[in-house]
Amino acid sequence: MKAPTIVAMDLEGVLVPEIWIAFAEKTGIPELRLTTRDVANYDELMQFRIRTLKEHNLKLKDIQDVIATMKPLPGAVEYMQWLSERYPNVILSDTFYEFAAPLMRQLNNPTLFCNSLVVDDEGNVTGYKMRLQDGKRHAALAFKQLNFRLVAMGDSFNDTAMLAEAGLGILFRPSEKVRQQFPQFPVVTEYSEIQKLIEDFDK
Amino acid sequence: MKAPTIVAMDLEGVLVPEIWIAFAEKTGIPELRLTTRDVANYDELMQFRIRTLKEHNLKLKDIQDVIATMKPLPGAVEYMQWLSERYPNVILSDTFYEFAAPLMRQLNNPTLFCNSLVVDDEGNVTGYKMRLQDGKRHAALAFKQLNFRLVAMGDSFNDTAMLAEAGLGILFRPSEKVRQQFPQFPVVTEYSEIQKLIEDFDK
Repeated sequence: MKAPTIVAMDLEGVLVPEIWIAFAEKTGIPELRLTTRDVANYDELMQFRIRTLKEHNLKLKDIQDVIATMKPLPGAVEYMQWLSERYPNVILSDTFYEFAAPLMRQLNNPTLFCNSLVVDDEGNVTGYKMRLQDGKRHAALAFKQLNFRLVAMGDSFNDTAMLAEAGLGILFRPSEKVRQQFPQFPVVTEYSEIQKLIEDFDK
Repeated sequence: MKAPTIVAMDLEGVLVPEIWIAFAEKTGIPELRLTTRDVANYDELMQFRIRTLKEHNLKLKDIQDVIATMKPLPGAVEYMQWLSERYPNVILSDTFYEFAAPLMRQLNNPTLFCNSLVVDDEGNVTGYKMRLQDGKRHAALAFKQLNFRLVAMGDSFNDTAMLAEAGLGILFRPSEKVRQQFPQFPVVTEYSEIQKLIEDFDK
């Protein structure tokens, strides 16, 4: 008899839009579209984003109000409902609890492992704190040590370490670059395909 | 700045009734009321339960139908809604996914780490499989290694190892024996008190 299956998923690009890009569009602040593809050093990028938020006088509350107008990807709510009725699952993301909250509510508040912002008494975002380095991979390892069989799913380079640890690693709508560099992972574009892959794995 | 808080909880006695006891009452099969207090060896107890189910010709589906008529403890649904909007959380239980499912649905399907039943082709329960020994404590340790601050909550002797690992360990409606043997843990009887303890811990 097999051990139970747990499903670990990335958040942005898999269940919800890329938060910074959608936020840049909603607010009309194009500098906030910059990603790690443009600024390789993550801390430099985050400090730039924090300065940009301050220049536009955007407090955490304003940011959350904008994020609350975003929607999960079409079909994501139904997929998560299906998943939660059948398998224990955890969302592993490099985003921040404070940003994700308005979107997590729309997904019915699944369990999320991510990072935290530093916010001052006036509600300004002044910094951030990564919970640990390589957090997705470490969570994947922990689930395996707890004797789960692991399905992991993501779309980006920062997901591939957890996919590699999984019994079944799935790329969901990856970029062409990610797809080419990691041909070992099945590529899916629809939630219905994920459901089928998980069910087959769990058989 | 502090690390994020995660909340780990026992299921039976904390969010839902003791499943075997409630099941024994619903079905009028008094032998199923026996617990580890009566039969110290857990495997012996489980084999007895499985035999008893078979004698009464109760298949998994019948058992699930009975369990589906049970309700979470009063206030548990609202507490879990409050909690899931604020903190990542995982339910750590020694029960079985197949038994817990009908109650988990009523709690909005939070993430549950527990064990699995072995069911034959005709739907009879023929065995069980513990995911790992001392599973609650190991999960608590994993959350700490992932740099969460841990709140753990339970009612029984089998919860005290995870409570001891937690930054805040809470006894929820424990028996007098458990309370006396573990005076180091705060004892609460209402969900509103848990909410206050978690918020104070997370400040």
